[in-house]
Amino acid sequence: MEVKMKSLPPPHGGNLVDRVVRDPERGKKIAAGCSAVYDIKPTLYRDMPVRNVYREIMSICYGFFSPVEGSMTQAELESLLEKRRLLSGWIFPYPMLFDISEEDYKKLGVSEGDRLLLRLKGQPFAVLDIEEVYEISPGEVATRTFGTPEANPEVVKVPFDFKHPGFTIYSSFNPIILAGKYRIINEPKLRKPFDRFWFPPAKSREEFKKRGWTTVIAHQTRNVPHTGHEALLRNAAFIGDIKPCDGIVVNCIIGAKRIGDYPDEAIVEAHEMVNLAGYVNPKRHLVTMCLWDMRYGNPIESLLHGIIRQNMGISFHMFGRDHAALGPYYDMYAAQILWEKGIPSFGLEAPPYAVEYGLHMRPQNMAEFWYCPHCGEVTYSENCTHKGELQRYSGSFIRSLLAEGVFPPSVIMRREVYEVVVKWWKEFGYPFNNKKYLTEREKELEVDLPPMNIPKFK
Amino acid sequence: MEVKMKSLPPPHGGNLVDRVVRDPERGKKIAAGCSAVYDIKPTLYRDMPVRNVYREIMSICYGFFSPVEGSMTQAELESLLEKRRLLSGWIFPYPMLFDISEEDYKKLGVSEGDRLLLRLKGQPFAVLDIEEVYEISPGEVATRTFGTPEANPEVVKVPFDFKHPGFTIYSSFNPIILAGKYRIINEPKLRKPFDRFWFPPAKSREEFKKRGWTTVIAHQTRNVPHTGHEALLRNAAFIGDIKPCDGIVVNCIIGAKRIGDYPDEAIVEAHEMVNLAGYVNPKRHLVTMCLWDMRYGNPIESLLHGIIRQNMGISFHMFGRDHAALGPYYDMYAAQILWEKGIPSFGLEAPPYAVEYGLHMRPQNMAEFWYCPHCGEVTYSENCTHKGELQRYSGSFIRSLLAEGVFPPSVIMRREVYEVVVKWWKEFGYPFNNKKYLTEREKELEVDLPPMNIPKFK
Repeated sequence: MEVKMKSLPPPHGGNLVDRVVRDPERGKKIAAGCSAVYDIKPTLYRDMPVRNVYREIMSICYGFFSPVEGSMTQAELESLLEKRRLLSGWIFPYPMLFDISEEDYKKLGVSEGDRLLLRLKGQPFAVLDIEEVYEISPGEVATRTFGTPEANPEVVKVPFDFKHPGFTIYSSFNPIILAGKYRIINEPKLRKPFDRFWFPPAKSREEFKKRGWTTVIAHQTRNVPHTGHEALLRNAAFIGDIKPCDGIVVNCIIGAKRIGDYPDEAIVEAHEMVNLAGYVNPKRHLVTMCLWDMRYGNPIESLLHGIIRQNMGISFHMFGRDHAALGPYYDMYAAQILWEKGIPSFGLEAPPYAVEYGLHMRPQNMAEFWYCPHCGEVTYSENCTHKGELQRYSGSFIRSLLAEGVFPPSVIMRREVYEVVVKWWKEFGYPFNNKKYLTEREKELEVDLPPMNIPKFK
Repeated sequence: MEVKMKSLPPPHGGNLVDRVVRDPERGKKIAAGCSAVYDIKPTLYRDMPVRNVYREIMSICYGFFSPVEGSMTQAELESLLEKRRLLSGWIFPYPMLFDISEEDYKKLGVSEGDRLLLRLKGQPFAVLDIEEVYEISPGEVATRTFGTPEANPEVVKVPFDFKHPGFTIYSSFNPIILAGKYRIINEPKLRKPFDRFWFPPAKSREEFKKRGWTTVIAHQTRNVPHTGHEALLRNAAFIGDIKPCDGIVVNCIIGAKRIGDYPDEAIVEAHEMVNLAGYVNPKRHLVTMCLWDMRYGNPIESLLHGIIRQNMGISFHMFGRDHAALGPYYDMYAAQILWEKGIPSFGLEAPPYAVEYGLHMRPQNMAEFWYCPHCGEVTYSENCTHKGELQRYSGSFIRSLLAEGVFPPSVIMRREVYEVVVKWWKEFGYPFNNKKYLTEREKELEVDLPPMNIPKFK
C-alpha cells in the first residue's frame, strides 16, 4: 500500500536519449564523414504535407521518445508491429522510420555502413548512420500499426481508410527504409512563439526540480482550450500522492495539422493564457510542446503520450473519452481500456504500467465534463444528474461560432483565451488552418537552422 | 509503483468488532448475570450536556472504533496517552473510558469481575464486564490527550483551556473508571431522520460491494454544506487509483454540539440533498453518520476519522485546513502535518499509513476553495490567482445571513440545501442549536430502546 512517490519517474528504458551534438565544430567533423546528402522533404498526400520526418528526428534526438535512437531496423519494425515492443523489450507504439523513394535511393547511392547527411531548410541538420536498408509495404505498415476489427476486436470498430490522418501518413510513406541512429549535428533554434514552450525531457526535469515538483500530471492537447478542457486539466490534477499533483504540464503536439484545426501558434499561447490570466496559477502550470505529426491512434497514440511525458519526468497522465481520436475507427474509450486492463491483441496483456519493460506513468482515466445551468458551472458527468439541462461541449459548434465572428459565452471559452485566437486570426487572416497556412508552415517549420558550412556538400 | 487497489481496505486491527447481541432472549440472559444497574447520564459542564458515553458504546460495539472493544484499562490508557497505541500495538487517538462518580461507585458496590447493566432512556441497553476499577485525574487526561505547546511543539500553539470543547469534555469526566468490554444487549432503533444514515462498518462495506465501489473517499462533516464544502468533496474525489474514486462517503459526526451549530437533523439531510438535487449523483454519493461527541482534536481527531472510515471500508480521506479544529490551539495544518510526515511527539514518527500497526487509509491533503468572480466559479487556491477579487468562505458570515432570514446567494449555498435548513428551522424555531434544542436532544438522543424486561432490575 506504500504509494508515496518522492521523485520523478525514470526515463522509459532507463536512460534519457540525448543525440544532439551541441558543439558546431564537432558537428562539422561528424558531417564531414558523410558520403551523401539528402534534403528532408515532407510526406505528401494529395499534394498536402501530412508529416515531416524532421519532427521525429527532433523528438528522438532530444529524448522525448527514449529509448528509441533512430530509424528502426526491419527486425525492430516487425517486433513492434507484432507486439509493440522494441528488440530490447521496452514497449513502444509506433514505427519510427526514415523513408525515401526508390529514385532518391538510387540517386544517393548509399548502403549499410554509410553516413548520410540530412539537410533541413537548406542547412545541415542531422546525420543518419545507416545500419540497414530494406523495403516496406506502406499500406501493410499502416494497417498493422492501427489494427483491424478482425485482429483487434477489443478496440477497433471500423477498418482504417484514407479519411484517417494517421493511416494516411503511414500509407504515404516511401517504400525504402534507411535504418540507423540519428544525431543532430546543427542544433536548430525554435522559432517564436514555440521557443518558450520548448522543454525537452532533460530541461523539463530540471524545471520540475527547480519548482519543487515531485508529482506532475500531463494534459495532452492539439486544441485551443475551452472551459471543458480547462476543467479536465484542473480536476484530473486532484489525483496525486497524499495531496493533489504539484504540477500540471500541458504538452501540445505540434506538427502537420488538418484544414480547420486551430493554428499551432494559437494552441500554445491559448494554453499559456490559462495561467497568465490566473485560472491555473503559473507556479503550478507549465505549457510545453512536442514535435510530432499526430497519428490520431487513440490507444496507440496514448502509449506514445505516456512515453513522451514519462520521459519529461511526469508521473500521471489524464485520459478522456476519444483520446487522440478521430472518426469511428476506435472504441471511444479505447485509450482508457489500454490503461485500465491492456489490449492483448496489441501485445499488451496488462496496462502499460503493469507489464515488464513497461512504463511508470500512471493513468487518470476521466469521464466527461459538461456545462450545466442547474449546477451553474462546468461539472463532471459522474456527479451531475441534470440530464435535461446539461450542455455537452462541441468543438465544431465552438469553431462555428468563431468562424461567424461570434464571441463564445465565457462559460464555454475564457475571454482571454478567445483573444489569443483573435490575435492569430488577425495574423493568418482566418481563425483556423487553411491550405495557405499549412503550406507556408511546412516551409517555415517550427525551427530555424544556423548556417553551417560543410565544404564537402556545398 | 504498483498501486492498484482492487478491494476495500481491511478493518483497523484486522477484524471488525461486533459486540451487538441481536437476539433479545440472549440479551436478557446476559443481563441476568449483572450484579448492578446504572443509568447512563450525560457528562455535564456548567449544567450543559457535553458528552454521552452511550455514543461511544454504540460506536465501539458496532465496530466504528475497531479494534477497541470497551472502556480502557489503566495500562491501555497510559499506553495511549504516552504513544497513541493500544496495548496490542495498533494506533488509536483517544481514551475510551466509562467514568462514574465516587458516589455512584459506592452506591453500585461493583468491583473487578462484576457485570454491570447499563440502562439508557429507562431500558436495558448494554453490559460492561468489569476488568479493572481505577482512578484518573480528568484534567491530566485532558491535557495529555490534546497536548501542550511544550510537549508537542510541532502542532500545539496555545495551551488548551475550557473554551475548547474537547478539553472541557475530558476535564469534566468523573474520576472513577470502570474498565472492561461492552456488549449491547438490546439493540437500539435509530430515530428519524438518522435511521436512513446508519451504516455501521459491516453494513457500509456491504453497501459498497453492492454498488461495485472499490475506491472510496471520506468527507468529514459537522456542518450544513456550503458550495465550498461541496467543491472540496467533489474535487478531492478525483484522487483514486487509475481513475477517480468510485464513491464519495459523507460521514457526519452526530452527538453533543454547541449553541449556534446547525442541528444534526439539518446536517444529515442537507448533505443528502446534495445528491437528491443532483449535484453529486446519488449512485456515487452516500451520506452516513457516526455517533461521537466531537472533541475538536484536529490531528488527533483526524486519526479517529481515519480509523472510523477505514473500518467502514473507505480507502481515502480528504483533509482540509483546520480539520476538526476550533480556536487557536493547533496549527491550522496540524492534521495535514500528521498525514504528511507524522507527529513524533504524539508517538507517530511517520504518517499513520507508514507506521507499523498503522492504518491503510490514505490522505488527500487539500488546500482551500473560494469563490472567485473572475473565474466565475468556486475554485482551488492552488489554481486561482485573482487575489483582489476572490471571496473566502466564512461559516459565521453564512450563519449570520441565515439568522437574519437572508437567503445566501446560490454561489455560496445551493437553494435546495438552504430549504433543508429552513425545514428544520421551522421544526425547532431557530436555524441553529439553542439551549432548548441541546437539552431536549440529550433526553431524546438519536435512538429509541425497545422495551426489555429484566426481572432482577425492575
